[in-house]
Amino acid sequence: MKLDLAALPLRTGTIYPAPYAAEVEGRVSLRLGQAGGLTKFGVNLVILAPGAKSSLRHWHLNEDEFVMILSGGCTLVMDAGPTPMLPGDCAAFPAGVPDGHHFINQTDAQTRFLVVGSRAAHEVATYSDVDLRVEQSGGVNTFTRRDGAPHSDRSLS
Amino acid sequence: MKLDLAALPLRTGTIYPAPYAAEVEGRVSLRLGQAGGLTKFGVNLVILAPGAKSSLRHWHLNEDEFVMILSGGCTLVMDAGPTPMLPGDCAAFPAGVPDGHHFINQTDAQTRFLVVGSRAAHEVATYSDVDLRVEQSGGVNTFTRRDGAPHSDRSLS
Repeated sequence: MKLDLAALPLRTGTIYPAPYAAEVEGRVSLRLGQAGGLTKFGVNLVILAPGAKSSLRHWHLNEDEFVMILSGGCTLVMDAGPTPMLPGDCAAFPAGVPDGHHFINQTDAQTRFLVVGSRAAHEVATYSDVDLRVEQSGGVNTFTRRDGAPHSDRSLS
Repeated sequence: MKLDLAALPLRTGTIYPAPYAAEVEGRVSLRLGQAGGLTKFGVNLVILAPGAKSSLRHWHLNEDEFVMILSGGCTLVMDAGPTPMLPGDCAAFPAGVPDGHHFINQTDAQTRFLVVGSRAAHEVATYSDVDLRVEQSGGVNTFTRRDGAPHSDRSLS
């Protein structure tokens, strides 16, 4: 069925613990796949205000990810450095490749992109630039340091 | 990694047996997910010439499908009839819902859309308007009539 995008709620917020939640201010998204009843992969339309980031830079252990830029422009950052992304440009991030990525809107206009992610029963995302990872299982997100030690807001710098 | 779309081969052809192969003349695609090393879902950029169809009208037993129109315009056809689709419009087709769909370019200009499909180890696609279905397993496509009887070109009308 055709989706009624205008009827979908704009989703804000993040699963990140403090102080990382502030890293994705200015990011909103529409859950397109969920709205269409899909369960086997996720599809989100993400909107980044000027200056906003898609996420902390991260890589997935078990889940594939795909992005297509729809409007505006942004910068893909990976281990090798920045790559400009314009409408129609695509990027793919296979599961298990330990090269973190995120997108930063360094323009003065809104940018929009489509992101698709597979669904793994058990997932681990590792963050490239901070001492953080998350295990995801059964709908529960457990954030720890990269070595598995408990996350504590007070001890994070 | 960012994909180099200009370097990707334009894929033509179809898995359909005669006489159905002619139904998708004027359809070409780029395998974006495969080019990016993704294995957990497929992502194709499909280009329909004026008059071309995305596929025979069909539904999937085990695989979710998602489409976003990128340029031009086309018509989504399902059991309830036609729905116009313009750039930015999206449609979702959850696995196991027996309401076949396809897209027809009834304009006089090229149309482009992105299509995402999950990957099931064993899949059955059933065609809505002809006496045909396909079972897909281990990279082998087996076309039969809907009741499972062997497909034979000579007996198809």
